[in-house]
Amino acid sequence: MEKVIGYITENYDRYLSELQDFLRIPSISTLPENNVYMSQCAKFIAEKLRAANMSKVEVFQTEGHPIVYGEWLGAPGKPTILIYGHYDVQPVDPVELWDNHPFEPVIYDDKIWARGATDDKGQLFVHIKSVEAFFKSNGCPPLNIKFIIEGEEEIGSENLTKFLNLNRNMLKCDAVLLSDTSLFDKGIPTITYGLRGLCYMEVEVTGPNRDLHSGSFGGAVANPINILAQMISKLHDNNGMVAIPDFYKDVLPLTDKEINSFKKLKFSEKLYAKNLGVAELGGEKGFTALERIWTRPTLDCNSISGGFKGAGAKTIIPSKASAKISMRLVPNQAPKKTAKLFTKYFQSIAPKSVKVTVKELHGGHPVIMPLDHKATIVAANAMQKAFGKKTVFMREGGSIPIIVDFVKKLKAPAVLMGLGLDSENLHSPNEHFDLNHFKLGILSSAYFIQEFSGK
Amino acid sequence: MEKVIGYITENYDRYLSELQDFLRIPSISTLPENNVYMSQCAKFIAEKLRAANMSKVEVFQTEGHPIVYGEWLGAPGKPTILIYGHYDVQPVDPVELWDNHPFEPVIYDDKIWARGATDDKGQLFVHIKSVEAFFKSNGCPPLNIKFIIEGEEEIGSENLTKFLNLNRNMLKCDAVLLSDTSLFDKGIPTITYGLRGLCYMEVEVTGPNRDLHSGSFGGAVANPINILAQMISKLHDNNGMVAIPDFYKDVLPLTDKEINSFKKLKFSEKLYAKNLGVAELGGEKGFTALERIWTRPTLDCNSISGGFKGAGAKTIIPSKASAKISMRLVPNQAPKKTAKLFTKYFQSIAPKSVKVTVKELHGGHPVIMPLDHKATIVAANAMQKAFGKKTVFMREGGSIPIIVDFVKKLKAPAVLMGLGLDSENLHSPNEHFDLNHFKLGILSSAYFIQEFSGK
Repeated sequence: MEKVIGYITENYDRYLSELQDFLRIPSISTLPENNVYMSQCAKFIAEKLRAANMSKVEVFQTEGHPIVYGEWLGAPGKPTILIYGHYDVQPVDPVELWDNHPFEPVIYDDKIWARGATDDKGQLFVHIKSVEAFFKSNGCPPLNIKFIIEGEEEIGSENLTKFLNLNRNMLKCDAVLLSDTSLFDKGIPTITYGLRGLCYMEVEVTGPNRDLHSGSFGGAVANPINILAQMISKLHDNNGMVAIPDFYKDVLPLTDKEINSFKKLKFSEKLYAKNLGVAELGGEKGFTALERIWTRPTLDCNSISGGFKGAGAKTIIPSKASAKISMRLVPNQAPKKTAKLFTKYFQSIAPKSVKVTVKELHGGHPVIMPLDHKATIVAANAMQKAFGKKTVFMREGGSIPIIVDFVKKLKAPAVLMGLGLDSENLHSPNEHFDLNHFKLGILSSAYFIQEFSGK
Repeated sequence: MEKVIGYITENYDRYLSELQDFLRIPSISTLPENNVYMSQCAKFIAEKLRAANMSKVEVFQTEGHPIVYGEWLGAPGKPTILIYGHYDVQPVDPVELWDNHPFEPVIYDDKIWARGATDDKGQLFVHIKSVEAFFKSNGCPPLNIKFIIEGEEEIGSENLTKFLNLNRNMLKCDAVLLSDTSLFDKGIPTITYGLRGLCYMEVEVTGPNRDLHSGSFGGAVANPINILAQMISKLHDNNGMVAIPDFYKDVLPLTDKEINSFKKLKFSEKLYAKNLGVAELGGEKGFTALERIWTRPTLDCNSISGGFKGAGAKTIIPSKASAKISMRLVPNQAPKKTAKLFTKYFQSIAPKSVKVTVKELHGGHPVIMPLDHKATIVAANAMQKAFGKKTVFMREGGSIPIIVDFVKKLKAPAVLMGLGLDSENLHSPNEHFDLNHFKLGILSSAYFIQEFSGK
């Protein structure tokens, strides 16, 4: 291991420079106009896997964005790990709020600043580089390694899901390793053992068959914006709970063990609110903020739109108004079932004066991993060694729907060795990644590979 | 009058071609990028006034868009009429819903199709052309004529209001004549004797200091879109009445005479709903649609915006959400007072988890004109002569705030000789103007000038 660690230290500057090249590619999966960059980014990853000595590297075309696969199976009889990551990133708007161009990475404050820095290019790169270190310093790693890297995580992993169904044998493994979550706090090694699921809906309310003058018609027709607002207001009750009937029916209650372990974590709601610039936190009554984020389902409007888009005053009653509404799910809520409950309720609260359409955009199951699995224990030890501190266990409010599929279909545990921070503006302007965690992450990955081989 | 009418008939094709030139100028007052067209349009009007023999024509620069003034005072001892109109138009979005380019007028179905066709370029042009006919056929009109034509009606007439204060003598008159309202129905001569006022507000709700990942933060913070929707839903009660305290305090109740006269008008709410493509009308309970539009105050969202603007799914809790909300006022509601009531209430319903700003964008007073004034009677007769049918009297849901100022400051009645139709898509895609009404309007204007001179 000394040689491996020595190689990582010696090559760190080059690693960083390669990460910058990776971050320069504007691989925004949701924008059709960026498709050419998706292919370019897949090719980039494939090259890096080859450079890391993967013996078989392939870029698979899909109906959406390409999937990159790499493998090295030169350690027969030893365990196999499947390393997952995604090369696609979120859109960059509002672009005027970025201090630097989102796709021209800069380094300062010991952080790297760019879209995708922490979600997920920086975190994914950690594992490619730890594997490279084994080959270039030691001859080869002590176990078998597979990589599966997709370009559709931010838009629902639809094609990787299909790919997984068709290629279960190829992807067979003893554990799935990934870094696409957060540390509990700066410098605190963390294993995430639960993820929320997602159910993402789009709704449209249509009133009159054209935009109307709000003077000549105001008072006679229902206004789609006002109606949509009323309907959205009926999605929560006065206690901040989601008001959709049966929404909470399948929710597993929190165990006392979890409640107590969360209480031990140092977390100040006051400071959290201050950092977000709000006078008061929001959400469901009767739970702490960590409980609400990690263990309770939620409903949020992600966008709303209707009426005049320009500056100044236009006096219309618009023909349409629309919103995108997503729900975060917890075990054992199911996305399809939730979409049905949402649709039924949303249609039921529509007045006769409008037409309402509801569309399910995408979804993913929530998941909890067992804390006593070998892979989890080894990962916690590996991070502890790299970071020099005791590893903590937490759950996460975000969703990585494909992880649930891996766990179910490959019958292997997933190890969520998150290296980001919630404060690193993932999905927001000025996304960044702490370079200290980048380096400690490469070491954690290397220790994991070393120790898991002894299984 | 025979000569005048003969001239109008002979020159009708040229009139129409000049109107098309007028409609080609994209004089959208609310878009700063269109400022150059505002000046161009003012110059166009000035030329047409000169061509119509106005002896003094001037384009006054303002802090906003130019005001065009023209006068001919060659009939001493005779009454003076002030003809008002506006050359500015509404924005054209959503532009993809237009069948023709909004600024390339086309004629078919005996209608002219373009932004501004009915509101107000086509209607305004009627009076310029009737005056021209007097000069070119008869020598001169039998009374004194002033024109005042502004470019800011769609954005609140702020600079004409100032201009009016500073130039009351110049604008002195015995009646203000304008066509910027609608006929009750196709071919039915109509005098409008009441207009609603306006109070136009902009609100912004700010939550966290940046857009947040709705997974990592969902449940912990208040979502500005959901909060804004809740706040908007609290602006109406379950009966469709505006829920702002004291909002109805100054509203004059409808007289039995008005209720009865409205009941005599042929109006099918069923057909009206069908034409708008809605299964059911909306609005306040306990009033007919005509009563709601003409005589009751209303509140409508004209736009709403927040969160991700692009296609596809972005899972954020946005930092901000905003809306433009306007209220139509009836006698004796006052816009400033209403703005204060709105602001106080809207702030009072904001939860502590967000910051709310409320801005008053513009406003205008409602007005009712006496039905027994000479100018009103003459106008009703003039339209009756031109249209060959009995004139009806109605009120109008829209607002022309500047008219209230004319009435108050010039101490003259306003004659609203509307020639449009509510179905002509003013403020919407595919705006148009019935050319039959254009022609009958020129005749009505000419009869009015002739008959009002005998006062």
